[in-house]
Amino acid sequence: MEDKKTKLRIIPLGGLEQIGMNITAFEYGDSVVIVDCGMAFPEDDMLGVDLVVPEITYLKEHADQIKGFVFTHGHEDHIGATPYVLKAVNAPLYATRLTMGLIEHKLEEHGLSNNVRRKTVKYGQIINLGDFKIEFIRTNHSIRDSAALAITCPSGTVIHTGDFKVDYTPVFGDPIDLQRFAELGKKGVLALLCDSTNAEREGFTSSERTIGKTFDTVFAEHALSRIIVATFASNVDRVQQVINSAQKFDRKVVVEGRSMVNIIDTAMELGYINAAPNTLISIDQMKNYTDEQLVIVTTGSQGESMAALSRMAAGIHKKVDIKPGDVIVFSSNPIPGNEKAVSKVMNELISLGADVIFQDTHVSGHARQEEIKLIYSLTKPKYAVPVHGEYRHRVAQAKLANEMGVPKEDIFILRSGDVLELDYDDASVIDQVPAGAVMVDGLGIGDVGNVVMRDRHKLSEDGIIIVAITVEGGSNMLLAGPEVISRGFVYVKESEDLIEEARNVVLEAIESNLNKKTLDWNKMKNDIRDRLSGFVWKRTERRPMILPIIMEV
Amino acid sequence: MEDKKTKLRIIPLGGLEQIGMNITAFEYGDSVVIVDCGMAFPEDDMLGVDLVVPEITYLKEHADQIKGFVFTHGHEDHIGATPYVLKAVNAPLYATRLTMGLIEHKLEEHGLSNNVRRKTVKYGQIINLGDFKIEFIRTNHSIRDSAALAITCPSGTVIHTGDFKVDYTPVFGDPIDLQRFAELGKKGVLALLCDSTNAEREGFTSSERTIGKTFDTVFAEHALSRIIVATFASNVDRVQQVINSAQKFDRKVVVEGRSMVNIIDTAMELGYINAAPNTLISIDQMKNYTDEQLVIVTTGSQGESMAALSRMAAGIHKKVDIKPGDVIVFSSNPIPGNEKAVSKVMNELISLGADVIFQDTHVSGHARQEEIKLIYSLTKPKYAVPVHGEYRHRVAQAKLANEMGVPKEDIFILRSGDVLELDYDDASVIDQVPAGAVMVDGLGIGDVGNVVMRDRHKLSEDGIIIVAITVEGGSNMLLAGPEVISRGFVYVKESEDLIEEARNVVLEAIESNLNKKTLDWNKMKNDIRDRLSGFVWKRTERRPMILPIIMEV
Repeated sequence: MEDKKTKLRIIPLGGLEQIGMNITAFEYGDSVVIVDCGMAFPEDDMLGVDLVVPEITYLKEHADQIKGFVFTHGHEDHIGATPYVLKAVNAPLYATRLTMGLIEHKLEEHGLSNNVRRKTVKYGQIINLGDFKIEFIRTNHSIRDSAALAITCPSGTVIHTGDFKVDYTPVFGDPIDLQRFAELGKKGVLALLCDSTNAEREGFTSSERTIGKTFDTVFAEHALSRIIVATFASNVDRVQQVINSAQKFDRKVVVEGRSMVNIIDTAMELGYINAAPNTLISIDQMKNYTDEQLVIVTTGSQGESMAALSRMAAGIHKKVDIKPGDVIVFSSNPIPGNEKAVSKVMNELISLGADVIFQDTHVSGHARQEEIKLIYSLTKPKYAVPVHGEYRHRVAQAKLANEMGVPKEDIFILRSGDVLELDYDDASVIDQVPAGAVMVDGLGIGDVGNVVMRDRHKLSEDGIIIVAITVEGGSNMLLAGPEVISRGFVYVKESEDLIEEARNVVLEAIESNLNKKTLDWNKMKNDIRDRLSGFVWKRTERRPMILPIIMEV
Repeated sequence: MEDKKTKLRIIPLGGLEQIGMNITAFEYGDSVVIVDCGMAFPEDDMLGVDLVVPEITYLKEHADQIKGFVFTHGHEDHIGATPYVLKAVNAPLYATRLTMGLIEHKLEEHGLSNNVRRKTVKYGQIINLGDFKIEFIRTNHSIRDSAALAITCPSGTVIHTGDFKVDYTPVFGDPIDLQRFAELGKKGVLALLCDSTNAEREGFTSSERTIGKTFDTVFAEHALSRIIVATFASNVDRVQQVINSAQKFDRKVVVEGRSMVNIIDTAMELGYINAAPNTLISIDQMKNYTDEQLVIVTTGSQGESMAALSRMAAGIHKKVDIKPGDVIVFSSNPIPGNEKAVSKVMNELISLGADVIFQDTHVSGHARQEEIKLIYSLTKPKYAVPVHGEYRHRVAQAKLANEMGVPKEDIFILRSGDVLELDYDDASVIDQVPAGAVMVDGLGIGDVGNVVMRDRHKLSEDGIIIVAITVEGGSNMLLAGPEVISRGFVYVKESEDLIEEARNVVLEAIESNLNKKTLDWNKMKNDIRDRLSGFVWKRTERRPMILPIIMEV
């Protein structure tokens, strides 16, 4: 089908222009391996869109060469698009145990469980995928079983860190396998694809374990209160720490919020939650306990309007009423864009009499500058390709890479769709393939595009005015109408005069057209639109969409 | 008209449920005085709304008692609604010099200059407004001529701080008049209405002067680059500091962005900008200077899409092209809700090769905890009424007030519309008057309400489907249609089958109605709506607005 590639190609298909939607193709010979397959949340201007998945035209064109998908960890921005992509491009999946558990949950939801081959991989294990060998290396992040990948082909070894931090005292398991990074570095690393999320931040991200101490303090200081901890649904380690403190202080733990229940259920089934029997109780058992015997872990730390905590704050949660004395811990930082929503929920909780705690209750799961430098110093890559982060974050990592000795010309700030071809002799972007965001709205994947979005924007700003008339085809006589109907434009009951005047403006436009010898429907529609929009602007300084409908009898 | 009030009443009509829109009525005897008259920016869910002004039904009902408007400072959230309110309730305006200059600019825009009495007031001056005496006290904030107000009536003296900070080394003029606060405190302060914006933050806000040092460092380190500084249009002090550094480093200053040009022009006319002749140049003179001779001060520090910096970043600014080597200083923090927009602009600037600096380049204009405590300690009010800030910020100040010795029952966290009646014997909320946000959309003030907003939301999420038919009145015969037209729902060219099927669904609904003995137009419309929305949900999981139009011939 194509020439065999004699140099490695790295093609990020998403994740560079936006947070989320991480997916990168690696190509050599006639083999393609895909790293991660994430979704993104819609931008504010994607009206009515539920989620965003990557454009995969390129993968479809190379479907027969795809040897497999490999995953770094189980967060939505790394696994969330998997079912959507698998429907178009089926290939085996490789991931560590918890990551695979979370993927399998998605496959079930989409009815794909029986159609996809998959293999659970251990740290240190090497899998062969065509011309590639891929090794999973232990890292730390805010979810267990996170892995960096060492991707080896005849051009050399590339290390892809995934999302990571260096945690010497993780809540679970062992610290990141720095020795293996060093060993690979000693042998020679062609390129490092390293997490840039916190590359603008100085210093070293604190250990997840520090949060446990904060929780203990909060539990000790509020011994008589019901405690509610909000965090990311996927932050399994954080939930474990709540359980740890709860056990120390003799409280039962309720997990609330659909997405968190799903993830914690999966984690428990796989043995990734350590809890004494009967520590976790269902929300319906809460009534058997007093406030000081309870802690609720919940979704909604980002102020998401339908999440459990937001419903509690708004007084519409079915099982939890916030009351004076409740202590609410926000164990998360607002993701940029969510600050206002988070603040709204905090205000609501405080106005119900709750105490809100949000300081020292979160650490990031991403490496800061000193950790990033450490990875560069261990791996000593020939090329640096900063990934995971906005442009500014990747530029910040580029500066660090340069400080660590990578020459500027060997550092690549890629755009999604760039084809980076590289070996030890040379590296350059040789091509661009289609890449971008595909909007998912209800059941439709990609059917909502620029035209629809532009219409939704216009409708959302100033509404719509519909002008309907019925005309007799032969005689060009106006049989009915004009009906002038608006939605989202003005409050009709208080604007009857305005609508009546608008009707007259339309009537003039119609009559001047009907009186012509040759009647042109399109010209008449344009006339109606122009005159009406002129009138409306003059009177209201608004620009509603104007939609003339002419029915011919 | 009413009983004379024998106790002071304080009625905040806005500013408590949202940032901005500060306006508070003080009543005693038959006198009403209004403190500030601000606007707010629309919330994210106020689709198509340009700005928000306070609901003033209550003021209209008491129009004959209003003795005047007094203003604390010239920011939009304290003066912006003045023209809108004056059109309904005319009374004299009292403000310090720069504040009045900025208000006058607004009056001109609205053609009100000749209809409103106004008086410029100096610090220390006391004005008599009916039963009230009002003294303007010097404070510090991010704009000159900011004032606290001592409002005295027979019930006692209330101090309203306005927005303030304690700056011992302000860029202009003198530090806040702490002695006067102390003197009033010694005589007895009935209530303190104090700025809560930073009440959650520990310590003391840094002096504005510290920013000057940062600017000097930036100018020194980037001697060969063009420097662009973005800040709030209204931050006159910050613009002065850019001018100070520019003069030291021999650069010309260009002010860009309509709102900033307006404010700086007003400030210059009044002599509130100190600049050597020819330091400020117009944007058209830029071409006569090299990069290292220029600094541009601009709007857009909040990522506002139409502001000058955003247009530069997007490559659509007519006079400034960003190029590699440019240094952009964000001299502001993102206001909650703007973080993502700010980040987008930064990414665009960096991708054009510019250097972006945003650390240590801003200090707040609002007092932190130690400053707030200082004011409590000087004034020793009987009652504390935290103002200016979200609920959480006001609760944070309430805690400080309590720590400073104000008993809990003497601290009032009010809602907009609350009528707080108080004297030295007693204080309580005795009533609620109408208060809230009035949305301004184009020329319409308040004509966009819940119905219109709900429609805009629905339209923005999933668009609209219009079904139009023409029926012969007597025979109930379908003469034309159904026409099924959608906007913002699906991309029509790719969904012809779906629309055709929808047409058949509609046709069935119509026929089953037309065949009935008694034809009920409304029932037929509802039938069309129900069947079509059921069909559409099943096929797309979307819920567009469905609008049937039946024309009778």
